[in-house]
Amino acid sequence: MAVARAGDLVLLLSADEKRFFVRLTPGEVLHTHKGQICHDDLIGRPLGRQVRSHTGVPFLALVPSIHDLVMSVRRATQIVYPKDIGYILLKMNVVPGTRVVEAGTGSGALTTALARYVAPTGRVYSYETREDMYRLAARNLARTGLDAYVDLKLRDIAEGFDERDADALFLDVRTPWTFLEQAAAALRGGGFFGALVPTTNQVIELLKEMEHGPWGDLEVCEILLRRYKAVPERLRPEDRLTPHTGYLIFARKIERFSTPEEARDVEESNDGGVEEVP
Amino acid sequence: MAVARAGDLVLLLSADEKRFFVRLTPGEVLHTHKGQICHDDLIGRPLGRQVRSHTGVPFLALVPSIHDLVMSVRRATQIVYPKDIGYILLKMNVVPGTRVVEAGTGSGALTTALARYVAPTGRVYSYETREDMYRLAARNLARTGLDAYVDLKLRDIAEGFDERDADALFLDVRTPWTFLEQAAAALRGGGFFGALVPTTNQVIELLKEMEHGPWGDLEVCEILLRRYKAVPERLRPEDRLTPHTGYLIFARKIERFSTPEEARDVEESNDGGVEEVP
Amino acid sequence: MAVARAGDLVLLLSADEKRFFVRLTPGEVLHTHKGQICHDDLIGRPLGRQVRSHTGVPFLALVPSIHDLVMSVRRATQIVYPKDIGYILLKMNVVPGTRVVEAGTGSGALTTALARYVAPTGRVYSYETREDMYRLAARNLARTGLDAYVDLKLRDIAEGFDERDADALFLDVRTPWTFLEQAAAALRGGGFFGALVPTTNQVIELLKEMEHGPWGDLEVCEILLRRYKAVPERLRPEDRLTPHTGYLIFARKIERFSTPEEARDVEESNDGGVEEVP
Amino acid sequence: MAVARAGDLVLLLSADEKRFFVRLTPGEVLHTHKGQICHDDLIGRPLGRQVRSHTGVPFLALVPSIHDLVMSVRRATQIVYPKDIGYILLKMNVVPGTRVVEAGTGSGALTTALARYVAPTGRVYSYETREDMYRLAARNLARTGLDAYVDLKLRDIAEGFDERDADALFLDVRTPWTFLEQAAAALRGGGFFGALVPTTNQVIELLKEMEHGPWGDLEVCEILLRRYKAVPERLRPEDRLTPHTGYLIFARKIERFSTPEEARDVEESNDGGVEEVP
Repeated sequence: MAVARAGDLVLLLSADEKRFFVRLTPGEVLHTHKGQICHDDLIGRPLGRQVRSHTGVPFLALVPSIHDLVMSVRRATQIVYPKDIGYILLKMNVVPGTRVVEAGTGSGALTTALARYVAPTGRVYSYETREDMYRLAARNLARTGLDAYVDLKLRDIAEGFDERDADALFLDVRTPWTFLEQAAAALRGGGFFGALVPTTNQVIELLKEMEHGPWGDLEVCEILLRRYKAVPERLRPEDRLTPHTGYLIFARKIERFSTPEEARDVEESNDGGVEEVP
Repeated sequence: MAVARAGDLVLLLSADEKRFFVRLTPGEVLHTHKGQICHDDLIGRPLGRQVRSHTGVPFLALVPSIHDLVMSVRRATQIVYPKDIGYILLKMNVVPGTRVVEAGTGSGALTTALARYVAPTGRVYSYETREDMYRLAARNLARTGLDAYVDLKLRDIAEGFDERDADALFLDVRTPWTFLEQAAAALRGGGFFGALVPTTNQVIELLKEMEHGPWGDLEVCEILLRRYKAVPERLRPEDRLTPHTGYLIFARKIERFSTPEEARDVEESNDGGVEEVP
Repeated sequence: MAVARAGDLVLLLSADEKRFFVRLTPGEVLHTHKGQICHDDLIGRPLGRQVRSHTGVPFLALVPSIHDLVMSVRRATQIVYPKDIGYILLKMNVVPGTRVVEAGTGSGALTTALARYVAPTGRVYSYETREDMYRLAARNLARTGLDAYVDLKLRDIAEGFDERDADALFLDVRTPWTFLEQAAAALRGGGFFGALVPTTNQVIELLKEMEHGPWGDLEVCEILLRRYKAVPERLRPEDRLTPHTGYLIFARKIERFSTPEEARDVEESNDGGVEEVP
Repeated sequence: MAVARAGDLVLLLSADEKRFFVRLTPGEVLHTHKGQICHDDLIGRPLGRQVRSHTGVPFLALVPSIHDLVMSVRRATQIVYPKDIGYILLKMNVVPGTRVVEAGTGSGALTTALARYVAPTGRVYSYETREDMYRLAARNLARTGLDAYVDLKLRDIAEGFDERDADALFLDVRTPWTFLEQAAAALRGGGFFGALVPTTNQVIELLKEMEHGPWGDLEVCEILLRRYKAVPERLRPEDRLTPHTGYLIFARKIERFSTPEEARDVEESNDGGVEEVP
């Protein structure tokens, strides 16, 4: 069982489900609505235990999960939620070693999760145009130590991405359909494209534009999370529901036919896009 | 861009969205409803491209994603779906290096994803009581090459798990509440517990039993996937909906209070379980 | 087009979607957050129009729909929502002339809708044990004028219902399974039974108990309402979602076999409940 | 308890949940997968009972509900489902005495429910352009006896509706936005407008066009029905889910301001549509 050390990021959870994240620092004190907790009470002891505040109220002291880290980013915009991130990981094959491009960075919630899953051999290249968001994401990433796996770039993606042959590219921007050429240029053949947009109009615009490009194996979906009260005597959905976050669009970048003969066939039969295959 | 080699697992996708998985083998031929494809047409060429069957019908040749691999396991039971797996990864902090215990193995769909995400330094320990399922899962894992990261065990978990200090443990069995002691014994303090059950009765039974054990930070939820037809002129939810898969229950194993003084307080005030903290 | 008269119930709707219900009374004034509206400005004029408050802000003046009436009841408890009421009407065949029994009355939201649909020749018999709720429901019904079709009873249904051969009976109480005998006694053969309960435990208890009684053609369901922002440029689900209201359970009261021969068969083969048919 | 008479429409429900609708006719026989049932065994006996087929298999004999009638229409197109119809009734205030216009008739499922709820003093005016659908709907309505409350019209609504000052008007057509002027002409001030469309594109088109017309109090929503298996030991959502039916759009027809002064204000400040109020 890992013993907590100075510098570790720890989650403290109160009985009324408030969550506090602290970077353990000798001599420091966490002030909560249920009393104070000295970091020194945690340092050198195993996590996964209860600790008491100075008023005797118990807290759980835990190593945060990726879910906890994502939900704890200081946010200035709507973040990408874990329910969506989990599905993105599997659909876009984000695994250790993956090189993934993302825009915009926003508060860095998705960036945090991507960094955790591509580490230690992969890398996240994340673009943002707003300086305030860029700074916020940098702070959020530094807090988790995952900034080591991320290149944050304060840059407009209309100019294109620096990367080539990326394994995956995710757009969380207002007009993703205007950046499809840049996205295709950055991705390797067969690379994974993903986007998140809140409105159906944006889904429609994006799908329309994708019809003209090198995209195949499309999927459009929505992930809905329904939480239940964890009370065995009264099991029922929670009143406070997770809000609508957005629609997810996935595709893969398709190269033209492999052989000159096939390529010729295509040019004769077809006016540009990838033929037939969805 | 990676060139396909003999031995690679490749996804071939037809225009009508049929999916074929092949292990590339020189001289072999894939027979589809749209004609034959020679493996030799793929070996030595980049993936992410279109290929034609001998009747001229185009297919996409792609490196499969984790999502593809999970959905392609040969199944004899209901599998855990990607919508649930993605959320499980984040909630249970399954990352490279994680030691995760799972029961039952079933067809090995979740096992496949867990193996992919704990690799290369972590390990999956997966228990199954039915020999036919055990063999099926072994074949499914061998097909993806992920068996290198998995210990499959043909064993009844009523006898307990071999592992101690596991980071995470997931139960996909009919009566998870009867194995909570074994689960707690296998997990480290703060370790992640998860379960999937199809009925509300099972959720209720599990929550009831967890009240008496060392479990904190509970979450009960359902992940719903809603797919849309990817047609920009007629964007609408698909008719064929994803069926109900199950309810997810998550918790963390909580150790007793850290100091003798605190431990004494607990024993006086409380008859066993973890005090107050949910 | 109907002209508004003194005594009419009118809905005034502001541009920011606040809803005001007024009983038109000569000389009276409605005070809103957007200024005052004199009832005399409405009396004698057609509804379905815009009117202005004294500060010049436009309001819509409308005849309220049943949906509006239900949502406008002054409430002291969770009400039954229109999404559920609409389905109840069709499943329980509530039409003009129906005699329907209901318990508990609560704030009278469902009572209001039932009264509107059984009128003018049917009747609602509604039971409530709490005197404060009974008074509140009476006031809510008097406001709409639908009290003419309702018998409100301040009574515990454990003592049984007064009615016999009722067409339909709906239970919105905490323990509906404890009143099934009383419900069966009040319903005619083939009569419609319905219940609304918020938790899965209650559904389970109710279904268990119904197995021993004269109930057939069961349905258990949930009605979910998803609202969208009515903005053509940005069509998307609303953030504020309708909360969980409850699970609906429907059944029909089944009489024994019609002929003595059949009745004899049943007694031999079966220990009480209705045979086989769900 | 009503005794079944020749000419009554009766629902026979088998233990495996097959539903048979018969018009009782002396001497006739219903042939089912579980044996034959003589109509004469039902005529003159109360409904709400079990009857046996000639092979001894029990059936429930029931008066059909509106829900049963709607689901039993012989269909050549997707019908409007009870989950949507129930909500339509409350939102559009369809009650006895209502004059409601509908297009297109389709198979007549919604027509059936509307007729049942406006009877005996109201009326349904239903338009259809396809002669085969018109005939099918006529047959479906005749079967239930509700044709007495319906005017079926084989007519293109592009030419306009015959009705004026209708209380409610519902469009279940492919391009409802092209008939808004006709709809407004047919409705009274304050009248209820509703539409059902399967795609988000149609919602967007309709909302765009409604911005220019006399429409207020808009609501866009979706009603989702989730059925559960009615098994108390294993309560869980059903696998076979109700498919997507469509999006519902509701509005009310708004007249201009009531007084000449107000009317003048409007013309000065605003270029056509109803001012500000949603």
